[in-house]
Amino acid sequence: MSLPRTQATFDPPVMEARRWLDGVDFGERPLINVSQAAPVDPPPEALRAEMARLVNEMPEVHLYGPVLGLPALRAEVAATWSRDYQGSVGPHQVAITAGCNQAYCAALSALCGEGDEVILPVPWYFNHRMWHDMSGIRTVPLRCGPGMVPQAEAAEVLITPRTRAIVLVSPNNPTGAEYPAQVIRAFFELARAHGIALILDETYRDFDGRSEPAHDLFSDPRWDETLIQLYSFSKAYRLTGHRVGAITASPARLAQAERFLDTVAICPPQLGQHAALWGMQTLGQWLAGERAEVLARRAAMAEGAAALEGWQLLGCGAYFAYLRHPFDLPSPELARRLVTEAGILALPGTMFAPEDDAEAPRQLRIAFANLDVPGIAAFHARLAAWRP
Amino acid sequence: MSLPRTQATFDPPVMEARRWLDGVDFGERPLINVSQAAPVDPPPEALRAEMARLVNEMPEVHLYGPVLGLPALRAEVAATWSRDYQGSVGPHQVAITAGCNQAYCAALSALCGEGDEVILPVPWYFNHRMWHDMSGIRTVPLRCGPGMVPQAEAAEVLITPRTRAIVLVSPNNPTGAEYPAQVIRAFFELARAHGIALILDETYRDFDGRSEPAHDLFSDPRWDETLIQLYSFSKAYRLTGHRVGAITASPARLAQAERFLDTVAICPPQLGQHAALWGMQTLGQWLAGERAEVLARRAAMAEGAAALEGWQLLGCGAYFAYLRHPFDLPSPELARRLVTEAGILALPGTMFAPEDDAEAPRQLRIAFANLDVPGIAAFHARLAAWRP
Repeated sequence: MSLPRTQATFDPPVMEARRWLDGVDFGERPLINVSQAAPVDPPPEALRAEMARLVNEMPEVHLYGPVLGLPALRAEVAATWSRDYQGSVGPHQVAITAGCNQAYCAALSALCGEGDEVILPVPWYFNHRMWHDMSGIRTVPLRCGPGMVPQAEAAEVLITPRTRAIVLVSPNNPTGAEYPAQVIRAFFELARAHGIALILDETYRDFDGRSEPAHDLFSDPRWDETLIQLYSFSKAYRLTGHRVGAITASPARLAQAERFLDTVAICPPQLGQHAALWGMQTLGQWLAGERAEVLARRAAMAEGAAALEGWQLLGCGAYFAYLRHPFDLPSPELARRLVTEAGILALPGTMFAPEDDAEAPRQLRIAFANLDVPGIAAFHARLAAWRP
Repeated sequence: MSLPRTQATFDPPVMEARRWLDGVDFGERPLINVSQAAPVDPPPEALRAEMARLVNEMPEVHLYGPVLGLPALRAEVAATWSRDYQGSVGPHQVAITAGCNQAYCAALSALCGEGDEVILPVPWYFNHRMWHDMSGIRTVPLRCGPGMVPQAEAAEVLITPRTRAIVLVSPNNPTGAEYPAQVIRAFFELARAHGIALILDETYRDFDGRSEPAHDLFSDPRWDETLIQLYSFSKAYRLTGHRVGAITASPARLAQAERFLDTVAICPPQLGQHAALWGMQTLGQWLAGERAEVLARRAAMAEGAAALEGWQLLGCGAYFAYLRHPFDLPSPELARRLVTEAGILALPGTMFAPEDDAEAPRQLRIAFANLDVPGIAAFHARLAAWRP
């Protein structure tokens, strides 16, 4: 018999980390939790009021909808991407999913079969690796270069006849790195030249610190032969509990993804889709304020990290900082000790890398976006005071 | 290269059928749509009001929750199953999923790897077959016996060293058959004897016409070594658009399923879970009325079918009737002609069976639950008047 699919992978890291808190009494010094990137506040009041109105007045929010999502939301995403990236995206090139994790699984299922390969930069987002494991895809690790940015030239030598896709996440989870537009373009050209897909996960695009478009791929008239872009409405509009994400890709690939989505989900939750639509149409100014706040926290994070003796800031952006610690202590052990000895919950780099990775035992991911600026100062103060 | 997973299966049948409607003008005679089993009305007003209140007042409904679902809902399901089945189910043996399709995919991922086998009675629910195809599981068809009920003895000869599970759906989609308790028990004993799982999908349990418990499996002190029961809140509380289902199984299997659910969903939608909980706690009497209405429609369906010359009622229960037609016309062609010539959209038996099935071309599935009693009479009148 084969190993069941779930036995080919590991337990969800965030949950493992949460178990480290069991029975710990933080007393006078409350826990600083930088383990998960998720809003801790509900959506703004105006959006909640609109959702309550829809629940009472719009029967459709309670009923099945199209597998590939609400047509008006698909059109809104298409128009927004066309504008923001100065490119051309049509509603038929957008599908809505029950969150961005599901978008990833659907995209990979439309690309890969048993034994196929996908190139994944290290450090990686662990659910990407978990999906590969569970669907029989071999993960080919691509070590990042300076600034935690992967290089297309380094990827090229990893391509084999079994390679189906290269995955990029920018701004990156877990490192926070914002990949330069020319790096993304180089990966796109590489993927196109080899007839494979480029998957670009832009879950954190709304918190990118740059003012220019993050890439120019959508301006390529044949972008959809190569690119599959992923997005989440969860962070921008605080809708994590409603599960709404998106895939932007060719209609042919979306028709394939539809088989997966119909079987695993039937349709994305309807209320979340209507909320996302209302958010995109109405909350632009509010979201700009959210972004400014995250960027202020990012600046505080970077400044504080620079003053930490022996520590090194490897990446910082969107919701995340990636730190290199100065101790002769593997990061899983360090992370567990930080819980009890410094009142900090952060994930060790080993959760984002292959088992044999040489750097991961020196790395920590800090999901700082939920800390305000004084909270970030407190975080740095605790790290500065701690010694093994 | 391998075939991508989605290319190993077919397009969602319900959507294909919906395309038959394109460009058809039904004029004076509106379409009678018996193609999909889904409520067409929103939840009752009191539940909508509660959901609106939660949207405004409970921040948690907008945020991530536990991968395996809301603890209070898990506990409510456990208590209800323990009572209804006169058995013993604990909260740690229940997980909540984003709909029952997802529950099925998660359960199978915890049981099967590439090339494993699952025994699936024919006619089957097409999304079950689609998931098998997409996850490398070989579907082993088990022809039903009289009354569209499968027999454990017939299943036994199909078991091989690669068999991981037998799947039962009762009340059945697509046939409406309610499997006798002793049949379900015989399958349970067969699965136990061979060390494989019995998956029992009870999505339509709330509309079972019998007054006694549908089975006694939960009273077996070691039920969770063998049984995986699935459920959907969608039909009972009209929450299809909110995506809430459940798996009842051993904690060890749920821990495996958790890996899949974390990766594909992160968590079930939160508002739907709170709505399901409120529904279970509050809407018992309302649901009894819903059941009575469905049973009245079922009686009308059965009575009308008995009067149809040449047609045969193969199964009737929950939301479905399964009909055998008297014409020398394959059911896909019949179904397409019924759209334009009789104003009826029903799915052909071929959508629920292997390609080589001898009976399927004579069969039609009728999802009658959305028709009121006069609507059912109109349906029968149209069928009676139609000739090829």
